[in-house]
Amino acid sequence: MESYPSFLLENAVNQLSKLPGVGKKSALRLALHLLKQDKEQVNDFAQSILLLKNEVKYCKICKNISDSDVCQICSNPTRDASTVCVVETIKEVMLVEDTQQYKGLYHVLGGVISPMDGVKPSDLEIESLVGRVAEGGIKEIIFALSPTMEGDTTAYYIARKLKDYDVKITTIARGIAVGDELQYSDSLTLGRSILDRQEYHV
Amino acid sequence: MESYPSFLLENAVNQLSKLPGVGKKSALRLALHLLKQDKEQVNDFAQSILLLKNEVKYCKICKNISDSDVCQICSNPTRDASTVCVVETIKEVMLVEDTQQYKGLYHVLGGVISPMDGVKPSDLEIESLVGRVAEGGIKEIIFALSPTMEGDTTAYYIARKLKDYDVKITTIARGIAVGDELQYSDSLTLGRSILDRQEYHV
Repeated sequence: MESYPSFLLENAVNQLSKLPGVGKKSALRLALHLLKQDKEQVNDFAQSILLLKNEVKYCKICKNISDSDVCQICSNPTRDASTVCVVETIKEVMLVEDTQQYKGLYHVLGGVISPMDGVKPSDLEIESLVGRVAEGGIKEIIFALSPTMEGDTTAYYIARKLKDYDVKITTIARGIAVGDELQYSDSLTLGRSILDRQEYHV
Repeated sequence: MESYPSFLLENAVNQLSKLPGVGKKSALRLALHLLKQDKEQVNDFAQSILLLKNEVKYCKICKNISDSDVCQICSNPTRDASTVCVVETIKEVMLVEDTQQYKGLYHVLGGVISPMDGVKPSDLEIESLVGRVAEGGIKEIIFALSPTMEGDTTAYYIARKLKDYDVKITTIARGIAVGDELQYSDSLTLGRSILDRQEYHV
């Protein structure tokens, strides 16, 4: 599709095709969809994106996305402030929150150490995490990072940084996913789930 | 994902998930992607959509999308103004243009007659097409509509409206697609391609 009848359309298609997973054809479909909507709807759509980018704050404690200086989780007095779950992005905060199994606080690193992608420890919110621990009151740090080389490297780096503090460091359990057939599990996961075996309660 | 840490994020995700083919999970991915971009990039993105909706014009002759009152195609003196290809949307204009096989003008109906979807003839640019024919100078009307009941109904309706005018009415050829295996074609298409058989030139 190269014969755009309008520069404005071509420009919008080019912009929409910058979104992840959106090619030129999908972008055209999205642009034509937006053209069919009411002006007010399209305005609301564009404004919601501008507001997100320009008005959103990051919690000054945990670096989670927030509408205020301190996020809802950090400012909630019923949460357990002595436990901090370390995650890569706000997506993982939302995932852990959805489990409803965790009542502590978070710390959002903003990524993992990855020399291949040029991500250094100083690019991440590691110093601020160490600062939180140094302030005292935190008894346990839980790593909820991806089981990749980058995730493991990041956990190891942070654990070393925290070794002189009186804080327990744990990592979420790796194992066979609930509902997964054992025969289809990979040997690395199966191996770890055997090493990390739990007492069977009857 | 119900635990949005920010109302601004939730709002943007809701807006993004209104796009066709974008669910809540993809919308969150898009929102987080936009959050990672520079302010200027996000601003350009949102502006391109606002400009498209608020500034784009529709050609007063063929109703195609356009940056000016008369589109590039209608205002191009090298195009054959005696032939008008009737299409459903501007997408089909772009598709036909991309074939580089057509040098006439277009008429964009803005849809097809569909009682099921509440689309009446008066909702479409049919009167304006009849008006163009009535003005004279048009020798041939080519229907390039989908081979659906709605497309056929629309073609029939327009053909009836034009029956008192001295204009040739044609429809694009239906047949086995170039490159398609004959064994996989449906019998309706195969039947029509036999009826519409062409002389074989050697």
